[in-house]
Amino acid sequence: MAGAARPEPVGHEGGVPLAYYAAPGRPLERCATREEIVRRLRSGRGQLWVDIDSRSDAEWSLLEDPFGFHPLAIEDTRSPESRVKVEEYQDYLFIVARSVRFAMWTPAPYDIALFNTYLFLGRNYLVTVRGEESPAVVAVVARLEGAPELMSRGVDHVAYMLLDALVDSYFPLLDEIDTFVDELETAIFREPGADTMERIFALKRSLLSLRRHLAPMREVTATLANRPSTYLTPDTQVYFRDVHDHVVRQVESVETFRDMVSAAMEAYLTTVSNRTNEVIKALSVIATVVLPPTLVASIYGMNFGWMPGLHHPLGFWLALASMVAISGAFLLYLWWKGWL
Amino acid sequence: MAGAARPEPVGHEGGVPLAYYAAPGRPLERCATREEIVRRLRSGRGQLWVDIDSRSDAEWSLLEDPFGFHPLAIEDTRSPESRVKVEEYQDYLFIVARSVRFAMWTPAPYDIALFNTYLFLGRNYLVTVRGEESPAVVAVVARLEGAPELMSRGVDHVAYMLLDALVDSYFPLLDEIDTFVDELETAIFREPGADTMERIFALKRSLLSLRRHLAPMREVTATLANRPSTYLTPDTQVYFRDVHDHVVRQVESVETFRDMVSAAMEAYLTTVSNRTNEVIKALSVIATVVLPPTLVASIYGMNFGWMPGLHHPLGFWLALASMVAISGAFLLYLWWKGWL
Amino acid sequence: MAGAARPEPVGHEGGVPLAYYAAPGRPLERCATREEIVRRLRSGRGQLWVDIDSRSDAEWSLLEDPFGFHPLAIEDTRSPESRVKVEEYQDYLFIVARSVRFAMWTPAPYDIALFNTYLFLGRNYLVTVRGEESPAVVAVVARLEGAPELMSRGVDHVAYMLLDALVDSYFPLLDEIDTFVDELETAIFREPGADTMERIFALKRSLLSLRRHLAPMREVTATLANRPSTYLTPDTQVYFRDVHDHVVRQVESVETFRDMVSAAMEAYLTTVSNRTNEVIKALSVIATVVLPPTLVASIYGMNFGWMPGLHHPLGFWLALASMVAISGAFLLYLWWKGWL
Amino acid sequence: MAGAARPEPVGHEGGVPLAYYAAPGRPLERCATREEIVRRLRSGRGQLWVDIDSRSDAEWSLLEDPFGFHPLAIEDTRSPESRVKVEEYQDYLFIVARSVRFAMWTPAPYDIALFNTYLFLGRNYLVTVRGEESPAVVAVVARLEGAPELMSRGVDHVAYMLLDALVDSYFPLLDEIDTFVDELETAIFREPGADTMERIFALKRSLLSLRRHLAPMREVTATLANRPSTYLTPDTQVYFRDVHDHVVRQVESVETFRDMVSAAMEAYLTTVSNRTNEVIKALSVIATVVLPPTLVASIYGMNFGWMPGLHHPLGFWLALASMVAISGAFLLYLWWKGWL
Amino acid sequence: MAGAARPEPVGHEGGVPLAYYAAPGRPLERCATREEIVRRLRSGRGQLWVDIDSRSDAEWSLLEDPFGFHPLAIEDTRSPESRVKVEEYQDYLFIVARSVRFAMWTPAPYDIALFNTYLFLGRNYLVTVRGEESPAVVAVVARLEGAPELMSRGVDHVAYMLLDALVDSYFPLLDEIDTFVDELETAIFREPGADTMERIFALKRSLLSLRRHLAPMREVTATLANRPSTYLTPDTQVYFRDVHDHVVRQVESVETFRDMVSAAMEAYLTTVSNRTNEVIKALSVIATVVLPPTLVASIYGMNFGWMPGLHHPLGFWLALASMVAISGAFLLYLWWKGWL
Repeated sequence: MAGAARPEPVGHEGGVPLAYYAAPGRPLERCATREEIVRRLRSGRGQLWVDIDSRSDAEWSLLEDPFGFHPLAIEDTRSPESRVKVEEYQDYLFIVARSVRFAMWTPAPYDIALFNTYLFLGRNYLVTVRGEESPAVVAVVARLEGAPELMSRGVDHVAYMLLDALVDSYFPLLDEIDTFVDELETAIFREPGADTMERIFALKRSLLSLRRHLAPMREVTATLANRPSTYLTPDTQVYFRDVHDHVVRQVESVETFRDMVSAAMEAYLTTVSNRTNEVIKALSVIATVVLPPTLVASIYGMNFGWMPGLHHPLGFWLALASMVAISGAFLLYLWWKGWL
Repeated sequence: MAGAARPEPVGHEGGVPLAYYAAPGRPLERCATREEIVRRLRSGRGQLWVDIDSRSDAEWSLLEDPFGFHPLAIEDTRSPESRVKVEEYQDYLFIVARSVRFAMWTPAPYDIALFNTYLFLGRNYLVTVRGEESPAVVAVVARLEGAPELMSRGVDHVAYMLLDALVDSYFPLLDEIDTFVDELETAIFREPGADTMERIFALKRSLLSLRRHLAPMREVTATLANRPSTYLTPDTQVYFRDVHDHVVRQVESVETFRDMVSAAMEAYLTTVSNRTNEVIKALSVIATVVLPPTLVASIYGMNFGWMPGLHHPLGFWLALASMVAISGAFLLYLWWKGWL
Repeated sequence: MAGAARPEPVGHEGGVPLAYYAAPGRPLERCATREEIVRRLRSGRGQLWVDIDSRSDAEWSLLEDPFGFHPLAIEDTRSPESRVKVEEYQDYLFIVARSVRFAMWTPAPYDIALFNTYLFLGRNYLVTVRGEESPAVVAVVARLEGAPELMSRGVDHVAYMLLDALVDSYFPLLDEIDTFVDELETAIFREPGADTMERIFALKRSLLSLRRHLAPMREVTATLANRPSTYLTPDTQVYFRDVHDHVVRQVESVETFRDMVSAAMEAYLTTVSNRTNEVIKALSVIATVVLPPTLVASIYGMNFGWMPGLHHPLGFWLALASMVAISGAFLLYLWWKGWL
Repeated sequence: MAGAARPEPVGHEGGVPLAYYAAPGRPLERCATREEIVRRLRSGRGQLWVDIDSRSDAEWSLLEDPFGFHPLAIEDTRSPESRVKVEEYQDYLFIVARSVRFAMWTPAPYDIALFNTYLFLGRNYLVTVRGEESPAVVAVVARLEGAPELMSRGVDHVAYMLLDALVDSYFPLLDEIDTFVDELETAIFREPGADTMERIFALKRSLLSLRRHLAPMREVTATLANRPSTYLTPDTQVYFRDVHDHVVRQVESVETFRDMVSAAMEAYLTTVSNRTNEVIKALSVIATVVLPPTLVASIYGMNFGWMPGLHHPLGFWLALASMVAISGAFLLYLWWKGWL
Repeated sequence: MAGAARPEPVGHEGGVPLAYYAAPGRPLERCATREEIVRRLRSGRGQLWVDIDSRSDAEWSLLEDPFGFHPLAIEDTRSPESRVKVEEYQDYLFIVARSVRFAMWTPAPYDIALFNTYLFLGRNYLVTVRGEESPAVVAVVARLEGAPELMSRGVDHVAYMLLDALVDSYFPLLDEIDTFVDELETAIFREPGADTMERIFALKRSLLSLRRHLAPMREVTATLANRPSTYLTPDTQVYFRDVHDHVVRQVESVETFRDMVSAAMEAYLTTVSNRTNEVIKALSVIATVVLPPTLVASIYGMNFGWMPGLHHPLGFWLALASMVAISGAFLLYLWWKGWL
């Protein structure tokens, strides 16, 4: 029914959010109307997952009624800058997760676009809120449609599947960066272009931004994996450990990339200095070899009536020989100093 | 009654601070005299908020009597350098909060002016002290006048509204800095002015100063949000979590900006080195191409009676050809070295 | 039966993993068939070690049946990127350890190849999983064949012997790096080659990668050595302290190497700048000594009918003397400035 | 009786340390003889403060008898390098505090001279030991003489007054450094002297030294303010919180100064590179504009009988025009490259 | 009997380690044979100190029998790379301490040679093991022979005396480094030799190595001073606090030295850049002043029949005046730019 490439929204017609309900011993069913969602929620039995697109005011209003979440949490779901976190309210956990938008690095190679997904996890319901199409939600829907029995593990397992998909969105980006960092070495030591420094700097910026977004994700997954909670069964927490492992590996990658980019910056500066040194050495060699003979030639270009050897038949050759001798002496000296 | 743009002080005539009182089941009323404030305070019922301008000695003296706060705390309210902190005294919490003054970055772009607000939070009263006009106080007064029922949530909720407004004063400054950091990249790689380094350095100074002031704010809000306290209801602490989120995001922004400015400094140094390298390369090319032919010309300018080819009809052209040949050989060599 | 240099797999024919079993008071015996392994495991007595090569699907399937490990843990054993960790499941510890592959730094000197070994440690069994030939397993098999009584100390002691061998694989690499860092000093200050910076950078990359892999190993061994566990006897934990000591020393070495490589990078940059300074000084000396006399000579090369001393008998010598005087004056000045 | 400017020691004649005693309900009295001190101490009542100058062996011997402090603590009072700390012994607290000597930055601007003060705080006595004149002791004596009732708050309050005075000795130094850091910006970007780098380096050294001495002071004051102790009343601990605030602010200042000096060092390096770039650009412009015409002139200075235009009436002007054209072309090129 | 300067081993003939025994109320006696040591140990009374030279297999074998220490601990005593640590075994503490070998910095000034001392501290015995002559052991023997009653304080006090002597071995080295760091400033800003950078780098290496060895010593002494232990009386722990103080001061010194050396490296780089800037400025001044007049002279050296002023009587002087004017104009310009 839903595939990763499908662009149009899943469900969500007429202010009715996508909603799945699983009662014990009954097949997974899809709730088609708001009334059905409210009824299922109020029954207090079974497992209910509601996915709300916050761009639709009709859907968004469900957060206040019938769910009645805290005003501050509801406010957070509309602010794209909400901090990544887990907060415990009286009847539910509130989770803000951040992920990378699909196909985001096409125009500006290392510019990162991020978006938030919000989860309200109660005892028998999960409400997810997002402000744009979410490939992660599409993927979870596809898995649920294919294996409806997953829902009976509880809504916390659905939350796990969603966070797992969100976190995995970082891997392609990190692989991209890994490739670029590998290219950097060639760029620096073999064929530095005019924009090498600019690209290093742009990469550093992206890594700083990435770290800033990933670091709190690590705390969120650590909390979900380790802290005992009414809303998470120990079985599901084992799965969250897996998500936490992924985030930890991502954070470590970013840290290592940062250190490598810093080292690359330093190496580039040193390489430039090295090249300047070479150029200036070449300039010095030219000057040392050419200027002294020019002085000798200028001397013999003076208009004095008499200069030593001026009228000697071999005068020209002797002057030339002295020029060669002087240049040769300087060349020897430079060779001895190790500049050649 | 009071708007964000209003410049004259709110109330505060004749040594009477601005004071609001809300008894249970009664409308919000404003206390007009010192006596009324004292009476309301001594009644031990209801919620009292007193806002003191510490520039007025008459108002300031209220801190000693009737409130009887600790001498050290009172001393702190007059020192512009008091450390940002939360301290628990026997009957009240003492909070020192720091915020950014409105319209402060006009003259020197990144010079930060800060000022303190002091809060004494007792069981049924809140005393706020400040040394200048405070847009945050004005904003809270406006909200209270508009929605008097907010006062009945308790004075700790008023403290929340005030701290929220104080903390939000940092956001415009951070946006300003964000814009500038974006401009930096162009400045460094495209059109560096003579003062680029100076501006980077000034920005770094401001960020260091900002971090120094924000970091303790984070501890203050964490304490208010998380540590159980007699003076804060759990309901209000949920709101303080929101303030804490804002401060944490601000601190993270400042840290990221600092890392980016450091990277920019390094990138700028490398760019300058790169440019020096280019200039010196150009100089070397000129010297290499011009000096050797000059030597040849000088040789033929010597006044020897005989020099090879001097009297040959094509002598001049042969000499010129040798000059071109020498320069060409050097140019070929430079091209082969990759300097052209 | 097995030696450190032996290249072919130990046992592992026909989907039967290598397995050893020791019952109390009975000699160590090798299980030849899957059925025997299952029987020994189900008996619940004695100590069973099963070594699985995950490239063989037949062997790998044992993890699911009869062992019945958690799906996530089984998945980890086939992902080369699993995070290094210790996880406690209901009936066993799951350990992911990372080590360095033997003879790995031959082609690219400081490129590090790593591989994982997975351990499932239950009360009376140890299952080890790996995706390639493991010198550590070969070494432990050799020790067990030589001293069968080691098995009776419990499977946790076998786990210790294995981790000890895995951790020791880092030492030759660190020694190699140590030697190179010693050579660096000479390379930087005595005879810097064109690729010195490139080698420093490559080393820095390797150290960053090494640190990233070793740091979690330290946490793993700390957990095994210090945290009380149902699967580890206090006697064995004393031995794990020894493994932990090794990892801590390795991590410290890597940190020190990193600091030294950073210092070397900085020192190299300064050395290059120093050399540029010397070259430019030499160029300046040449220019200062040669250019002014050239000007004098050019002046006397002008074609005016009268120039001072032009027709004087000693004119040439006077001109020459003035050139020498000017150069001498400049040389004296340079000597006084300390440039000679 | 004693003023801040008074240079001669307060009391301390004939091996009798300065000592004050306050019995409950009795005026503050000064103990004139060793015997009186011993008697007051042995009485076990009232509050006794003894100030010992460790340069006097007679006074110093009191530490052993009658006080009987631990040999290691006594040893510490004579070692100028004792570590700043609080140590709890069986009957007293032993505090080592470090402060800045008055008027210390006159000769070498940022060279810091420090000295230790030692406090033994028992239940009803305070012994202070120091190796030179202490303005802090002088100030506390002045306050006690002026307000004898302060003594009746307990000797722990006297300890507070002393530590407060010691800690405040850092503020003038930090203000001095603040002024200098402000001057740095001008120094770096406007009018760098030959010694700018030297002064930055000297400042960095002083800040490193300052941090090393202040950091343990922060731990000392934190301990005194927060850890419950038999020797400190809760009332006094509120006052120690104030001292702790001061030290925390000082440590933060030092950290900020260090970051700013590091940024200044980097900025200075970049500025120097920038200036080198400008100079080398100017050199290149000169060389580019002057050398090619010189080549042309040299060519026409050759002694060939025939050269193109040599005998033309406008030959000279044509040659000059070609020189101007060549220089002009190069200037255009440089202008196009943005070097002018 | 034993002095600090005595080079030959103390005792240790024929495989008998140095051993001292003190029974309650009896004088200190020296055990002359292995049998006596074993008898004293087995008596379970009194205090026994045995000092073993691990180069002697006969002495070393005592660790296994009669002491029966853990094989891993015994193994550690022969590995020069054992990690510095305190480990608690069932009947004793095992301490690995590292110190600096006497007279070690003579040949290569900042090359540090370290060696380990191992202590087994039981309830009534202390066994010390070392692989070379130990000035610390010699010093402790001298103190014990001089004041035998020290032994009756318990073997933990002997352990204190030994660790105190070991730790103090770092102080002369740190003083040496302190002197060198002071010299650095002069070296960098006044008279930099060709090897200044090399010496800074060597010092940095030594400091890195020193830190790596001292940091775990700090943990060891903190454990001994603060953690309650069966093998240490509270009285002795007060003394270990003193040792801990020394190590903390040493670690702080090393950290400060590292920061200062880093600052020195940076300052040196900037100084070199500054000097390059000066040299290049001088070169530019020479070129600017000399090259343009040379062009003028070359022009008048052309062989055209007519050039302006060529036949004028004052032609030469006019040409010379134009040269001086051009040079003067450039000089004025340079002076205005602030380069002179």
